[in-house]
Amino acid sequence: MPDHLLIQAAKGETTQRVPIWIMRQAGRILPPYLKIRRSVKSFRHLVKNPELACEVTLQPVDILKVDAAIIFSDILVIPEAMNLPYELIEKKGPYFERTIQSPEDLSLLKTVTDLSEIGYTIEAIKLVKNELNNRVPLIGFAGCPWTIFAYMTEGSGSKTFSKAKRLLYQHPQMAHQLLQSITDSTIFYLKAQIAAGADIVQIFDSHAGMLSKQTFNAFSLPYIRQICAAITEVPVITFAKGAWFSLKELNELDCEVIGLDWTINPDYARQYISNKSLQGNLDPCQLYGKPKDIQKATQQMLSSFGGQSHIANLGHGVYPDTPLDNVKCFVETVQAWESTNVVVEES
Amino acid sequence: MPDHLLIQAAKGETTQRVPIWIMRQAGRILPPYLKIRRSVKSFRHLVKNPELACEVTLQPVDILKVDAAIIFSDILVIPEAMNLPYELIEKKGPYFERTIQSPEDLSLLKTVTDLSEIGYTIEAIKLVKNELNNRVPLIGFAGCPWTIFAYMTEGSGSKTFSKAKRLLYQHPQMAHQLLQSITDSTIFYLKAQIAAGADIVQIFDSHAGMLSKQTFNAFSLPYIRQICAAITEVPVITFAKGAWFSLKELNELDCEVIGLDWTINPDYARQYISNKSLQGNLDPCQLYGKPKDIQKATQQMLSSFGGQSHIANLGHGVYPDTPLDNVKCFVETVQAWESTNVVVEES
Repeated sequence: MPDHLLIQAAKGETTQRVPIWIMRQAGRILPPYLKIRRSVKSFRHLVKNPELACEVTLQPVDILKVDAAIIFSDILVIPEAMNLPYELIEKKGPYFERTIQSPEDLSLLKTVTDLSEIGYTIEAIKLVKNELNNRVPLIGFAGCPWTIFAYMTEGSGSKTFSKAKRLLYQHPQMAHQLLQSITDSTIFYLKAQIAAGADIVQIFDSHAGMLSKQTFNAFSLPYIRQICAAITEVPVITFAKGAWFSLKELNELDCEVIGLDWTINPDYARQYISNKSLQGNLDPCQLYGKPKDIQKATQQMLSSFGGQSHIANLGHGVYPDTPLDNVKCFVETVQAWESTNVVVEES
Repeated sequence: MPDHLLIQAAKGETTQRVPIWIMRQAGRILPPYLKIRRSVKSFRHLVKNPELACEVTLQPVDILKVDAAIIFSDILVIPEAMNLPYELIEKKGPYFERTIQSPEDLSLLKTVTDLSEIGYTIEAIKLVKNELNNRVPLIGFAGCPWTIFAYMTEGSGSKTFSKAKRLLYQHPQMAHQLLQSITDSTIFYLKAQIAAGADIVQIFDSHAGMLSKQTFNAFSLPYIRQICAAITEVPVITFAKGAWFSLKELNELDCEVIGLDWTINPDYARQYISNKSLQGNLDPCQLYGKPKDIQKATQQMLSSFGGQSHIANLGHGVYPDTPLDNVKCFVETVQAWESTNVVVEES
């Protein structure tokens, strides 16, 4: 049985059309998701309930007809499994009552080496795989170590992540210790996701752009590199938001796909990314526009990626107030698009 | 009488050493500022009181020995003068009770064409110029139109500015109207600052990096271009934070200096910025480090800029919890640095 379109594109194989999925497709914008969300106490209740997580994972496949499912979960599963619990505060984002500030705080943490603290996501993946019945591939995911570190030390979202970055400059050795423990935990977690059925995994460095090139290359990239090297079972998508300055270094990773945010034009990225597929990268705010403008911008985006070795997506997670019909328009435009300047071999 | 060091560097003239000032140097980190701040009801009371604004403008010149003063004010003077008042909420940032959402809302606004609503800053500039007695030059400033637009439509700070960006996609014509009105107001405001004595001006596009290259070039750059073309009296520094993707376009502006945030290495910028001076760009978080690390990073930064046509600064405003001694270490390191690979002509 041949690979799914998304896996083919990830591997750089010739595809009959460009596949599409959307970051944050499970949740937020889907009415049946919002109904389920209102029926439970918190976002984390959803994440921790395999049956419900399975149900909301499948919704975008049925409603949006995207070419992949992504397991409904949260990158902060890992800090919690490492013994640093968090809350998600409505309209605010994550909040950690305890944060890591000093070398002493590290002793409170454990590296994840068994399924006890992450089992609910693994269970959800098994349920999803069964329900999907191979209709589309399933994407597993995790945060990149710097981004997880940023939350564990800052304690919440931030415009500057200056508390997190302060540790890089004040306690670089401790920072590396924590980053290594997160990395080891993340590799264990991703391998468990793959063993349960994930067909491809994406790692999110959501806060890469807070760093300078020097600090990204010193404190983020080495740990991404370890993860990419460790995951040999399935293709890996690395999405380092804002890391335009290290595209050359990202090209050297042992991964199959580089995700681009909406500030990086594909022709720019292609100067640095030679032997990988690219993912992205429509500005999520484009989906606030009129359908005909969405179509035009999507077609321009598709053309600029060239039609092959491309997984279409937004350049960031879909925003909660995006009209559902506009999201559908985006998906349909991608799936209807035919590249005229790329020869697709007859199969 | 010869120009001050900072003005020489802005004009690309050979300087005996690299001049330095620090974004947000007036306020935040200075104990005598914090004392004055506590004595008044709000930040805006300080901004609107010319005597106090003058006093806090001078403090960093005396305490930090920086090579320029920058008038103590706020970029949101302009929305308020246009009839959109705001509050600054402690630890949160600006908040607008009314925001601009539709073409109808535009009728509530006026373009600034007289001093009545901005007179307090102009008065403060006159007081500062008198007190400075030409010790160092005085920097005037304003926000760039897109950044002001972003606050007027979003109503507060934001991680995505998705409400502001939505208007660009939904109501581009209205967006251009508002941007033009902000531009006209800003040019009037900057010219008034210059007439009152500002020796150089900086325009801040703090939220340029929220935009794609296409939207930046369509909705921000044309208005920056108008401002640069209109300000012929003194040098202009354009600081478009996050606009790494449009360095080539920034190079074509009729301004003297391009400010770089900490993500753009100077050797990268110099591939695009040929005939202008550069400003920046130490990561503000570097100042959390040990003095010897600050010295080393500062010296590396200075070397990478090459020693001429360079105004040293941070790559973003100094963060409020930065140790004062570390800020002094940064200033002193710049002022003590001697470029060994640049020939400075005997004067």
